[in-house]
Order: sequence, then C-alpha cells, then structure tokens
Amino acid sequence: MSETDASDRGLQIGFVLFPNLLNLDFAGPWDVLANLPGATLHVVAKDLAPIVSSSGLSILPTITFANCPQLDLICVPGGAGHLDAMEDEAMLDFLRQQEPGCRFLTSVCTGALVLAAAGLLEGYEATTHWNSHDRLAAYGAIPKQGRVVVDRNRITGGGVTAGIDFGLTMLAALQGEAFARQVQLGIEYTPEPPFPGAGSPETAEPAILEAARAKSAGYRAKMAEVDARAVARLKVG
Amino acid sequence: MSETDASDRGLQIGFVLFPNLLNLDFAGPWDVLANLPGATLHVVAKDLAPIVSSSGLSILPTITFANCPQLDLICVPGGAGHLDAMEDEAMLDFLRQQEPGCRFLTSVCTGALVLAAAGLLEGYEATTHWNSHDRLAAYGAIPKQGRVVVDRNRITGGGVTAGIDFGLTMLAALQGEAFARQVQLGIEYTPEPPFPGAGSPETAEPAILEAARAKSAGYRAKMAEVDARAVARLKVG
Repeated sequence: MSETDASDRGLQIGFVLFPNLLNLDFAGPWDVLANLPGATLHVVAKDLAPIVSSSGLSILPTITFANCPQLDLICVPGGAGHLDAMEDEAMLDFLRQQEPGCRFLTSVCTGALVLAAAGLLEGYEATTHWNSHDRLAAYGAIPKQGRVVVDRNRITGGGVTAGIDFGLTMLAALQGEAFARQVQLGIEYTPEPPFPGAGSPETAEPAILEAARAKSAGYRAKMAEVDARAVARLKVG
Repeated sequence: MSETDASDRGLQIGFVLFPNLLNLDFAGPWDVLANLPGATLHVVAKDLAPIVSSSGLSILPTITFANCPQLDLICVPGGAGHLDAMEDEAMLDFLRQQEPGCRFLTSVCTGALVLAAAGLLEGYEATTHWNSHDRLAAYGAIPKQGRVVVDRNRITGGGVTAGIDFGLTMLAALQGEAFARQVQLGIEYTPEPPFPGAGSPETAEPAILEAARAKSAGYRAKMAEVDARAVARLKVG
C-alpha cells in the first residue's frame, strides 16, 4: 500500500487481544487513542469469538489476524494470558508479518513479552510490568525503568494503569501536545491514588511487596518455563 | 434474602451498562473490584445484546435487569449514553428496585446523573465529571468536589479515570487497606500523567479548557434538555 493510500485511509490502530488478557491494560489506551481524528481502531484476534479477560469481561473482536489490514500502530496488552500468547504461533506470525509496515509497535504491561517472544524487541529499550521487568533481557531487549519507554518505533508501557500514560504519550506524538492535553482533561486524568506510593515496588510497604511476590511465586515459575522455551525458539529460528 | 444467605453467596457486584457508555469509566473499577475474594461481578444490561461503547468497543452483558439477583454493590458508569439512560424507564426502575437491598449505590463519571434521574441522590453529597458537576443540584444532590465522594452508602467518582481511585477506595472499605494496597501494586497504579495539571479544569491551561467547553456546547445543550425533563418527572413522580 502506498503512502498516499495510507494517508487517505486514516491511521489504522490495532489492539491485539488474546484470552485471559488484563482488560484494563488495553481499555485505558483504547479510550485515549479513540479520540484521534480519522483513526480506525481494531480489536484484532485470532478469530471473532468473544475474548474473555482475566477478570471475566467478554469483548468482541472486530477483525481476525487473517483479515486485518496493514496496521500503522499495533498495541499488545498483557495479563496472565500473555504466557499462552507467547507460544501461539499465529499470534507471533501476525506480529512479525505486520512489523515491517507498521509505524509503531507498542505494548502495555506484559504485552512487551509477547513482542519479545516474536523477536521484535531485540536491541530495543523496553519496559513492562514490574514483576516481569527482569525477563526482558533474555530476549535481547534493553530493560529500562519508566512508565513509558520510547526507543525509535517501539513504545512500551509499564504495568496495567501505565496504559493511560502510554496512550496520552502516543496521542501527543501523533496529534500534538495540545490535543493530548484536551483528551487528558476529557478523561479527567488527575489521579489521586488512595494510597500514595503503594503502586510501585520501589515505594510500596515492604510487607505488601513481599506478599505480592509470594503470591506470584507459581506464576513466576510458569513465566520462567515459558521464557526458557521462547528464548530457545528465537535462537533456533 | 437473609443475611446468612447474603454472606454464603459472596458479594454480588453489578456494573449497569447502557449503549454509548464510556468504557474506561467501568473498566477501571471492574478490574480493581474483580480482585475481591468470593465476589461475583455482573455486567448488567436491559438485554444480552452486546453493549457498544462510545469508542466502539463491544462488551457482552452477563445478566439482564429481569434476571439480576439483589446486588450488594451497584456501579453506574457514565459517558454520552448516560443521557438516554436517564430517560430509560427500565433502567430507572431497575435502580429503584435494587436500592433498598443494596449496600452500596455508586457511580463513576456521569453515571451519577443516572442515579440522580432515578431520584436516588436526593440529599446525598455527590460528584461527577467536571463538565456535569453543576447539574447535580437540580436533582437535590449536594455537589461536592472530589475524586471520590462518600456519603453514607452513596459513593460517587469523578470523571472517567477517577473510576480507578473509586475502585481502590471501595476495595479498602470492603476488604481492608492492606488488600487495597496489594491491588494498587498489582495494577502498578503509580500514575505519571504526561501533562501534569492538564487533567483538571482548575489547573488546565485556560485555552485548552475553553476549547473543551466550546467543543461540548452541543452536548451541554442536550444535557440541559434531558435534565429539565428528568427533574420535572421526579417532581411529578
């Protein structure tokens, strides 16, 4: 598709969903980016069956991998289901096929690990949910702390609610800061977390952080297994 | 249903959806409250047809007004569709019928106006999206600024992203502060709005605020019409 066509058709934005995703990872940036004039937003999935989030919400995809046009911006959200997505060849193939023609390849939360498993973060600075940050390096990504990390056309957001900061950052890049400020006002994004400091491992109470780590031990073990297989596949491939 | 039954069955939480809602209004508190042990979360709507949000997302309801059990917590989100919801007798009847047995009657964003149109905020302090705050008084509500306003069992959140602060506040009330802190860490809620101050009318750049007001003039006019009818109906009823 020529540049002119791309301009005529408006920006094509695809959020790539998979079962057991964390809905808020994508709901934040979706409602921010939906404000972009002329953009078309797609809920992309393997098939059109409802996607059930980790919290039990059912969302209807709008287009399949097979029928999806070339996207200008891809965003992969995270959540527990990212582990299966990392081993889903249809998912990885879709991302690899889209990459060369895509202006922005992005993720929120553990969606970064899906990009990584597709081999698409090698040599790029990236961030992800704090509990998965130490997994990025094995894929050749350069782990960087940050609510939103921008490295050329790879833009990665931190955990879950970082998707809102990510969305506004993307919006400013695409439509200018004044427009992004308007949208920030529209969504009344003047957050007051009820427990200041509780949202980050650096500033959370040590007992709370330890409890979170203990609670996720089984999940971390599964992550390690998936990572070992995914990294091995990348090296073979 | 006796107290014992209520305890046995776990907390029943219902998000009441309607067409053209603002998805993020409910996606935030949903993913926060979904962490409550033993709770059941319902997507309640008039029928089971997919609900299409203002940003084009389709969400599947899980239960109809007719089949919904007594809820312990009702949350009404907002968005442009709240105006039609305010004149939907099935919606208003559902809220009125649920109210006497409901522990918490809550809203996010302009969902407060739906509660108000049902006559359920009279004499209660409440908040809503900044662009609708001046509408509350006509319904006998006591407008109060705040990200989350608690008055007895009416808990109202401000605009859109305030739903996350609302959800964490509710979670702390229901399951304790330590639990809410764990969830805040889990969703990495340590927000860094890219444009500090841009999210509130008090601190936004005057030109941006004026543009937002100008852009919403038609919407404000429609709000005024709906409010006039809804208030008249309440006085007659």
